[in-house]
Amino acid sequence: MKKALIIGAGRSASSAITYLLEQASKGDFDWEIRVGDFNPELARAKVGGHPKGEAIFFDVFDEALRRREVEAAQMVISFLPPHLHVLVAKDCIEFKTHLVTASYVSDEMQALDAEARKAGILLLNELGADPGIDHMSAMETIDRIKAEGGKLEAFRSYCGALIAPECNNIWGYKFTWAPRNIILAGQGGPARYMKDGHIRYIPSLRLFAQVDTIEIPGYGSFEAYANRNSLGYRKPYGLMDTATMYRATLRMPGFCQAWDALVRIGLTDNSYKVDYSATMPWREFLMSYIPEFGGGLSNEARLAKYLNVEEDGEIIEKIKWTGMLSEQPIFLENASPADILQDLLEKKWVFEAGDTDMLVMQHQYEWTLGRERKRMHSSLVVMGEDSVQTAISRTVGLPAAMGAKLLMENKLTRTGVAIPTTPDIYAPILRDLENHGIIFTHEEF
Amino acid sequence: MKKALIIGAGRSASSAITYLLEQASKGDFDWEIRVGDFNPELARAKVGGHPKGEAIFFDVFDEALRRREVEAAQMVISFLPPHLHVLVAKDCIEFKTHLVTASYVSDEMQALDAEARKAGILLLNELGADPGIDHMSAMETIDRIKAEGGKLEAFRSYCGALIAPECNNIWGYKFTWAPRNIILAGQGGPARYMKDGHIRYIPSLRLFAQVDTIEIPGYGSFEAYANRNSLGYRKPYGLMDTATMYRATLRMPGFCQAWDALVRIGLTDNSYKVDYSATMPWREFLMSYIPEFGGGLSNEARLAKYLNVEEDGEIIEKIKWTGMLSEQPIFLENASPADILQDLLEKKWVFEAGDTDMLVMQHQYEWTLGRERKRMHSSLVVMGEDSVQTAISRTVGLPAAMGAKLLMENKLTRTGVAIPTTPDIYAPILRDLENHGIIFTHEEF
Repeated sequence: MKKALIIGAGRSASSAITYLLEQASKGDFDWEIRVGDFNPELARAKVGGHPKGEAIFFDVFDEALRRREVEAAQMVISFLPPHLHVLVAKDCIEFKTHLVTASYVSDEMQALDAEARKAGILLLNELGADPGIDHMSAMETIDRIKAEGGKLEAFRSYCGALIAPECNNIWGYKFTWAPRNIILAGQGGPARYMKDGHIRYIPSLRLFAQVDTIEIPGYGSFEAYANRNSLGYRKPYGLMDTATMYRATLRMPGFCQAWDALVRIGLTDNSYKVDYSATMPWREFLMSYIPEFGGGLSNEARLAKYLNVEEDGEIIEKIKWTGMLSEQPIFLENASPADILQDLLEKKWVFEAGDTDMLVMQHQYEWTLGRERKRMHSSLVVMGEDSVQTAISRTVGLPAAMGAKLLMENKLTRTGVAIPTTPDIYAPILRDLENHGIIFTHEEF
Repeated sequence: MKKALIIGAGRSASSAITYLLEQASKGDFDWEIRVGDFNPELARAKVGGHPKGEAIFFDVFDEALRRREVEAAQMVISFLPPHLHVLVAKDCIEFKTHLVTASYVSDEMQALDAEARKAGILLLNELGADPGIDHMSAMETIDRIKAEGGKLEAFRSYCGALIAPECNNIWGYKFTWAPRNIILAGQGGPARYMKDGHIRYIPSLRLFAQVDTIEIPGYGSFEAYANRNSLGYRKPYGLMDTATMYRATLRMPGFCQAWDALVRIGLTDNSYKVDYSATMPWREFLMSYIPEFGGGLSNEARLAKYLNVEEDGEIIEKIKWTGMLSEQPIFLENASPADILQDLLEKKWVFEAGDTDMLVMQHQYEWTLGRERKRMHSSLVVMGEDSVQTAISRTVGLPAAMGAKLLMENKLTRTGVAIPTTPDIYAPILRDLENHGIIFTHEEF
């Protein structure tokens, strides 16, 4: 019996495990699905005693164990933290085992392309929600527009992992996904994109001040802030001549202005450690960043004046709601402002049992076909089923598992390092996703 | 004959070389002054054929040469780039040779304290203008206030290396000192200081927006932006109980608001490389950061609207003066915005033959003496003599050379890593500086 190895049994793996165990139950798909996690109890819970499943202890830094498991498998899906995929990928090359991840292709991963080709294996990355479903759905439409003779003038792509409106707090946000990425959004360089043939930069310090708004039919409006690097997808998407190319992240209305206030105060900075943070009260810490304006003002008044907002308005209300003006000590040592902010928000923005999440995506296409100018919006909303089969778990885990299944059935002949921008990969996975209820709606204008 | 080695014959070494050669001409001070530089012509020019001087080729990375020269010397002054002092300091420990630098004590330097004590030598740092003259002049006053039974409530210290008013451009600034430090001012962490018993942070993104103004008698007003770390000097200055402790850098009025505009545009960012910078015109580069505000606006109007300034006001005029709106290509590859900005400003803010520089310093003291509340401002203005014996060269080089002379005369018994905050060091050097015309004036209020 052939073996597939799923590394990591955490949130995003749930749907992948369920999907592959379902497939393995069918007569003609005779695979053992091994699920490895540093916490074998978690792996066991996810496998749920399925006859084709096997839960194992897995430590990616245990080289002997890692190599043994990769060698025994014909197919590996890694849900490890992104920087650890390369460890597994090198074993995959040695033992000629295919690999699927839902993570961005790192420089280290890209450097394995020639070796993977030589080994005759596929290192298939960016096969999750965003990146993943966005690439596949966009490329199917872009390829169709080109095949019909159209010329794409503008492409904008939006995606957000959010909390369902009925479960929301005053910020319109809870952590349904890695908190660190949210706190550090915009660090490490400006957002870069193309607008009307010109390169556009948005430095991180005003990323949340230069937002736009989109409408999702049936779900109302959402705010968007620009992704780090939209330029990098011009070539993979074949859009070097497209004048506008923009990728952005969605939030509920009002979120970006409030987050911008935290950025402007300096709370998202990760470049230095705060003095005396173990014992300093939150209020003292917050107000150390705010000018005094001559003295005599309340904390709220100083904040409002610095941020240029109403003292009794929603920005100040959101800041107060987090507890930043409380006398509670920070209780963190050797911590950056971003560390301190994350620690606070992980308590306030916790995704609770009973909460439902949602994944929202929209692509906007503008193209010319002869003398005609055409526009289309393609939208996707996936609601979580419960707190395990969340929207983010399903939209990250299912594409990865479906890609793995194609490889297990020898339906992909491609080798090397790839992302799902070609029809051999995206077409069967998009159809499979539709069968699982992940379906885009299209409006033409 | 004993030997002193001066490493580096560049701008800040000039006055030190001149001073030590003058001392060596006196009968009872029988020293050979060796001046080493990677460019021996420069060393020769500075020594000027003096009988007690010797110009040599010196490459700090030539270990054999470096060790030979340090071993032969009883005293070394290093004007190397700050990160290279430690290489020399380790040799100094091995060969029991004293070392003087005008640079901040790095963590690596501080780590040599015990070894230096064991070797019986002094590694005397921060003996230039700022740091240097500021420490010495402030500590003399602080020690006097304490000796008289006073309690220091507030200490503010300001220093700026500037161009003489009559040589100025529209920005009120030319590079009289390392350009890189100016471009990257405020990077790598917020300014930290104490105000009325509270820690205050100013994140780099608004360092030039939160400025204050001081008056220097006879020279008018200057603007000040906060230094990186005023907290670090509370302990060395013995001011842990002083409620306000603030160190800042001086600029001509109007400079900070204009520099703040460059910060807000994103031009001082050093964290990423700009795309296509070899061929991109400056105007295209600058405007890639500026929102379009719906289109149809001129470049100047977009800039003015983004910066919230008058389109025909001085900020836009200063930006245009630099050539940032020209069609001239950037001509730099693989460059950060800060690299690109520095390259432009090095051409525009060049310190020309015939220009005169100035060093401006002011300390402000507030203390209580019994029931009395007292205030004093101590101010220093040093004008450059010409384009070699500049104010910055004299105020950096003379304290270092005077400290070296004290060591050469065995007048300091201290060992280990030190800065000039104690009377054994500061008193003789301050008197010697006064003899050289570097004299503070004091106003009590």
